[in-house]
Amino acid sequence: MSDTIFTKIIKGEIPCHKVYENDLVFAFLDISPLSRGHVLVIPKEPAATLDQLSAESAGALGEALPALCRAVMKATGATAYNILQNNGAEAHQAVFHVHFHIIPKVETGEGLGIVWNTKSLESGETLAASIREHL
Amino acid sequence: MSDTIFTKIIKGEIPCHKVYENDLVFAFLDISPLSRGHVLVIPKEPAATLDQLSAESAGALGEALPALCRAVMKATGATAYNILQNNGAEAHQAVFHVHFHIIPKVETGEGLGIVWNTKSLESGETLAASIREHL
Repeated sequence: MSDTIFTKIIKGEIPCHKVYENDLVFAFLDISPLSRGHVLVIPKEPAATLDQLSAESAGALGEALPALCRAVMKATGATAYNILQNNGAEAHQAVFHVHFHIIPKVETGEGLGIVWNTKSLESGETLAASIREHL
Repeated sequence: MSDTIFTKIIKGEIPCHKVYENDLVFAFLDISPLSRGHVLVIPKEPAATLDQLSAESAGALGEALPALCRAVMKATGATAYNILQNNGAEAHQAVFHVHFHIIPKVETGEGLGIVWNTKSLESGETLAASIREHL
């Protein structure tokens, strides 16, 4: 995978407002936040999408999230928030290095806007069986 | 925390279309999908929000996600998808047991709708320092 801006941020070649770092994980403020406290949590491993990331790095990201969420809530006073991770340009991904957004949702309405158009589940057991076969 | 519908699904008291299970993690089809292959990945630990979940369970969720994403993509043919995890009613959470959505985004537009109204980052270093102090 070619370097993205996030590789340069991890290496310190581009400045950021870092909030956390360990062997596998790096977290910093989004410079175009949806709300105050919008944080990006990324693996140091340069995978473009979550399906391409190692289980080890993905586990380390998951493990880091609860403490980061608590710290963002304490620092901002927000009590609700969304975690979002986009894969593919059609799914709103802009930087092709895996990143989890922590986005506080505040009373003024600032934060992630969600459009939720559900459908009925059809042929559920056939679909579930197909997913299981591909695991 | 009181039981939710997800506790009953994990226990098998309510049927579901299960796609994966290990010691800490359970995954099944959302019965009101945004798109074909919409899967919920949940911890067996009954935490209401991600900030209340143990690092161990959160790590196990993260570790399970890449393989589940690959299987959903293979089973559905989708190439783009969003991971979403909501915390708090204001942030669109409906069931108060942590759940990560895997939502394929398909060419017809089906999937997660995102509204992305960014702002400028203000007092970034002060905010980052406050988050770091709360970690």
